[in-house]
Amino acid sequence: MTTLPETSDERATALAALGRTRELLDPGLRDWVGRLPEPVARVASYHFGWTDSAGRPGAAPAGKALRPALVFGCAEAMGAPAAEALAPAVAVELVHNFSLLHDDILDGDTTRRHRATAWAVFGSSAALLAGDALLVQASRVLTEDPLGRARTVTGLRWLAEATTRLIEGEQADIGFEERAHVSLAECLAMTERKTAALLACACALGALWGGGPPERIEALRRFGTHLGMAFQLVDDLLGIWGDPKVTGKPAGADLASRKKSLPVVAALDSGTPAGRRLAERYGASRGRSAEAEPAEIAALAELVSEAGGRAWAEEAAEREFTRAMESLRAAEPAEPAAAGLAALARLACRRDH
Amino acid sequence: MTTLPETSDERATALAALGRTRELLDPGLRDWVGRLPEPVARVASYHFGWTDSAGRPGAAPAGKALRPALVFGCAEAMGAPAAEALAPAVAVELVHNFSLLHDDILDGDTTRRHRATAWAVFGSSAALLAGDALLVQASRVLTEDPLGRARTVTGLRWLAEATTRLIEGEQADIGFEERAHVSLAECLAMTERKTAALLACACALGALWGGGPPERIEALRRFGTHLGMAFQLVDDLLGIWGDPKVTGKPAGADLASRKKSLPVVAALDSGTPAGRRLAERYGASRGRSAEAEPAEIAALAELVSEAGGRAWAEEAAEREFTRAMESLRAAEPAEPAAAGLAALARLACRRDH
Repeated sequence: MTTLPETSDERATALAALGRTRELLDPGLRDWVGRLPEPVARVASYHFGWTDSAGRPGAAPAGKALRPALVFGCAEAMGAPAAEALAPAVAVELVHNFSLLHDDILDGDTTRRHRATAWAVFGSSAALLAGDALLVQASRVLTEDPLGRARTVTGLRWLAEATTRLIEGEQADIGFEERAHVSLAECLAMTERKTAALLACACALGALWGGGPPERIEALRRFGTHLGMAFQLVDDLLGIWGDPKVTGKPAGADLASRKKSLPVVAALDSGTPAGRRLAERYGASRGRSAEAEPAEIAALAELVSEAGGRAWAEEAAEREFTRAMESLRAAEPAEPAAAGLAALARLACRRDH
Repeated sequence: MTTLPETSDERATALAALGRTRELLDPGLRDWVGRLPEPVARVASYHFGWTDSAGRPGAAPAGKALRPALVFGCAEAMGAPAAEALAPAVAVELVHNFSLLHDDILDGDTTRRHRATAWAVFGSSAALLAGDALLVQASRVLTEDPLGRARTVTGLRWLAEATTRLIEGEQADIGFEERAHVSLAECLAMTERKTAALLACACALGALWGGGPPERIEALRRFGTHLGMAFQLVDDLLGIWGDPKVTGKPAGADLASRKKSLPVVAALDSGTPAGRRLAERYGASRGRSAEAEPAEIAALAELVSEAGGRAWAEEAAEREFTRAMESLRAAEPAEPAAAGLAALARLACRRDH
């Protein structure tokens, strides 16, 4: 991927922000997960990578904690210490992981971050209930934040609204797999719900806890929305053309599962001859012999490119990224938080190294 | 069942309270469900009995709405108009139905209130997401209650705590089915979580919204806890000895599924010869021929009685009911709400007509 160049300084800045996020976040996150009833906490601890399937302490690679990093960065951008936004940072991470636990059940995915998914280890009942419990715990974190009082109700409303959009997006995504035709507009609307809504909420909650005025909060919310769209577009590009050594998924993973990702839908919806040929083969060639499949995936990827799906997604990612940066500037963020948020955004949208 | 006699006046009072509850509740409940994204709302509307599986308006029998009736009654008992407690009444009913949607998936139950369950009609993915959405919507109802402001954060915290207990209870209940031995203490603790916690929360929220002082709120919370325990004990008795024409379930339904309900666990845990014979046969005789099964169920029911499980459950139900009434009096409830709550409690604990 050659889009969205980043300097080595910027990369160092982003990695520092993510490292500091884990330091600030983890004690609070572990505390709140630890307050759950024991059988539920066991499943959740495994899911977060803190324990192995037998409950022994382990150190599986943690997620990037991008959403909490945005909460902290946006609070600082409004002039508050990051630590004051711990409650919303924990809450958005809990909601994100509620959605991962349920999505893995719904999608039947058996691995995540190179480990067996929670439902694959503990069964779908235990994973479903653990997801429910994390969702409830996200509310509790906000209701019990001593620093929150005046903004708690607003924060809870925003978080609930974003979660409803996330659920709506997941529902739409599942529906797409069963439908012959999905328009690009529908796929973009699904992405806004499934991915961008919670990133936007993370930014807005950080700015709210940071004491920002409404118009600056809304600018940071737009930053999160555009960043979320760019992030998903890049993720979808990597799902087809990403390096397996970097992504941790097999080459062309999204094509292997015949997923209706954004570049694919753009190609299918392009009205080009290549798009029509792709439509005839996508799905129909699924279930071929394992030997024939790598060649078929390469052919499908070539058709997505030829129909303009790749170029469209790269341009759309750059456009969304540019808008995210414009929204960030409009929020008049304080330094050095502003540079940190810009670096985080670029890292999130350039995951090829 | 001869326990917990009720007068015809009391019965009329209880039915009037439930009827009025539906009138007060339904517009708000339908409004909040209607605000959900369309595919989720369709599943929820079917689940609530408002539409059939094709989305056409229908009039399937609604649930009793016992929890909202307790919210309204407890608000009135503290001297406030019932209508002022609409938000918590809608919220507890949403949480209750979130748990029904997920429980039906987890338990594999294909019918509820004489209709196919939501997952059986729409698939488990759609039902799971609809449950998630109802849970989130319960928070939204409270955050947007214009009458709530000062008590919203407390109410949200109580509702989240009760929901966590409910999830813990469901998790324990599932675990019981896989275990050879469950103690009566464990089974009672599970019941307190799975059934009593949300009924207690309904009472406490009604009292809070009704403006009651802490000690009267806590007395009504205890009323709900004891009522919940009595309710579940009676439900478990009906699951073995209930009249199929009244319960809507086949005779001995809980024995047919070899459920570890309270009378069964009391019998298994009794240390009596009949209890030991029951332990040998329970589970082991599952999966016999369909012809042999009715005789086996009758034999199992007889062993539960002989081991004292039935008498224990009847006495425990009466004891919990008595404690519920004592707690109700301790709350110094205003009339006529007090009489309404007592009548509701008796109806909930005597479902044999």
